[in-house]
Amino acid sequence: MPPERPDVLDLATALIACDSVTPARGAVFDVLEAALLSLGFAVDRFVVGAAPDGPVENLLAVRGTAGPHFAFAGHLDVVPPGTGWTSGAFAADVRDGLLYGRGAVDMKGAIAAFVAAIPVTSAGTISLIVTGDEEGPATFGTPAIIDRMANRGIAPDLCLVGEPTSTARLGDMIKIGRRGSVNIWIDMPGRQGHVAYPQLADNPIPRLVAALAEIDAIVLDHGNAWFQPSNIEATDITVGNPATNVIPAHAAARLSVRFNDEQNGAALVQRIEAIVQRHAPAATVTARISGEAFLTPPGAFSTLIGDAIEAHTGLRPELSTTGGTSDARFLSKLCPVVEFGLCNATMHKLDEAVAIADLETLRDIYADIIARALR
Amino acid sequence: MPPERPDVLDLATALIACDSVTPARGAVFDVLEAALLSLGFAVDRFVVGAAPDGPVENLLAVRGTAGPHFAFAGHLDVVPPGTGWTSGAFAADVRDGLLYGRGAVDMKGAIAAFVAAIPVTSAGTISLIVTGDEEGPATFGTPAIIDRMANRGIAPDLCLVGEPTSTARLGDMIKIGRRGSVNIWIDMPGRQGHVAYPQLADNPIPRLVAALAEIDAIVLDHGNAWFQPSNIEATDITVGNPATNVIPAHAAARLSVRFNDEQNGAALVQRIEAIVQRHAPAATVTARISGEAFLTPPGAFSTLIGDAIEAHTGLRPELSTTGGTSDARFLSKLCPVVEFGLCNATMHKLDEAVAIADLETLRDIYADIIARALR
Ligand SMILES: [Zn+2]
Ligand SMILES: [Zn+2]
Repeated sequence: MPPERPDVLDLATALIACDSVTPARGAVFDVLEAALLSLGFAVDRFVVGAAPDGPVENLLAVRGTAGPHFAFAGHLDVVPPGTGWTSGAFAADVRDGLLYGRGAVDMKGAIAAFVAAIPVTSAGTISLIVTGDEEGPATFGTPAIIDRMANRGIAPDLCLVGEPTSTARLGDMIKIGRRGSVNIWIDMPGRQGHVAYPQLADNPIPRLVAALAEIDAIVLDHGNAWFQPSNIEATDITVGNPATNVIPAHAAARLSVRFNDEQNGAALVQRIEAIVQRHAPAATVTARISGEAFLTPPGAFSTLIGDAIEAHTGLRPELSTTGGTSDARFLSKLCPVVEFGLCNATMHKLDEAVAIADLETLRDIYADIIARALR
Repeated sequence: MPPERPDVLDLATALIACDSVTPARGAVFDVLEAALLSLGFAVDRFVVGAAPDGPVENLLAVRGTAGPHFAFAGHLDVVPPGTGWTSGAFAADVRDGLLYGRGAVDMKGAIAAFVAAIPVTSAGTISLIVTGDEEGPATFGTPAIIDRMANRGIAPDLCLVGEPTSTARLGDMIKIGRRGSVNIWIDMPGRQGHVAYPQLADNPIPRLVAALAEIDAIVLDHGNAWFQPSNIEATDITVGNPATNVIPAHAAARLSVRFNDEQNGAALVQRIEAIVQRHAPAATVTARISGEAFLTPPGAFSTLIGDAIEAHTGLRPELSTTGGTSDARFLSKLCPVVEFGLCNATMHKLDEAVAIADLETLRDIYADIIARALR
């Protein structure tokens, strides 16, 4: 069977039509696999992990063995659609030049654009790293594919992640790094009592407040050329004491830290823990590091992508590190990683939609990037 | 009908047998009224107030017109019994020398002891100020009786409140004052946002924490000869933000201030409000002052009561101002007020009980106090 390039709108429509609320499995991978097999890829689908963070389906597709090796990474799972869509979240209908559906921009549209951009034959190696869990805990998603690549000796030289990085217009922004993220839970025990007899009780609130005030005063850094300053936000405090005349037995707080490449997660947690335990030795601090910060320093790869974008849109993309985390935090350990995809205005929202014209332009830019990367 | 002194155990049993969970009305007042009518009192029962803090039944009984005028104050309502009593909360049964039932010590037992202590004839004037709402909001309780007394031109020279002030043994403690109490609610608005974009949000938690830390550092006073230091306790903080990546729109806290006679409620509220609004001009501060502090300086009245207690128990009572608030805070505006009653170990608890021997001793002490006060 001769190689066959799929139509970007057809493929995007077929992918969106599969309900693939995170974690994604089955049908949506069937659609992608069929398209990749037609293009001559060797497709490796595998399911890993157990509840609660699994099982998760992943796909690793490779064509070629020679260098250079260019990889594209993405996810087929989507966030829950919620209710209130004009038509169904998985109806994949077109109205006024827009293709609607959950995942249209985040990021089935970009996956379709990339597959449609792959030339029938090419020098070097092209691979696709596609997970069914980026929107969930991601424990068994991209990290599991990276493990599999290591086992199989597959090592890309460059990796493009298809997250929706554009803002007002396609191509106005790419991401060359991401901040790290850690959530921290502070649990402060005390001893309950009556407010009339404070000497018989031990109120945890003053200690929690003192610790939070000290934490709030921390200046982690002042940012740098590529990152905004690292930031600690207190996002919740819980006491849950309905009685006006009772000193509570317990108080808790939660912090969210977004940090740049001048910090690292474990050291941040230690620093917070030291402050908390100075105010309350009995307190416990629990942390979950979602990812460390990374930066692909501006250079050949970001210039290559910027040139391709400019050739097709006239825009020179801003090189940004803002926003949340993405799977690029894992992929950055393999090789230089840049993220570039569709406009993110409707991602995770009702009536998520992509302009068909953008799908076609993105396909053309991706084709140009592939050509420049494998030159 | 000749005056008739009731038996203290019979009267206490009859009062306890009436379910009078706050606010009390009807039957329990019928029992008390009958006993007072037998003793020659003019009894004025009246119902005041509307929902939610009313209606409340009150009783004002007076015998005599000449001076001196000695008043006894108390309440016939009780706190809800809860479940798990050995026998019924209103069964009023006697086991091993103890009379069991909700209100046994707080304070139907003391009311029975006082009525049983009233001599068949006496010089001067004796009055009883008995409300059906001391344990609830108390809006239409003792304050309403005080209004009625003012309208009728009734002004006692001394007032004894029958709250259970004794601790380990009957007569070991009387109250010559009470701290004031105010609850304060702090409401801190902000603007919700994503933790990745803190510049677009306005987190109320750091401002609340800074205000609470400043409030916690306040030393209101160091106490004095008769009062422990005034104290501010933060009793609750509420944010209610389940999302780890969201900056909350709102934070709130609640304070409970117990203060001595060097402070006053309105000034305390103003001081807290000034701190809060310096940290957050948009914050709102709401306060409910339950009562101001009062002190009946140690003197003739407390000595008279101490002498009567010592004569019957051998104990010299400690003069205290500790604990919560009581209706003495209202009565202290009329005349010197001292509180003295049964042992408070079981008050507001399951299997509340009074020793029959204590009921009889309390009756004898009260009789002695009446005699000394009307001498
Ligand atoms: Zn995404
Ligand atoms: Zn009471």
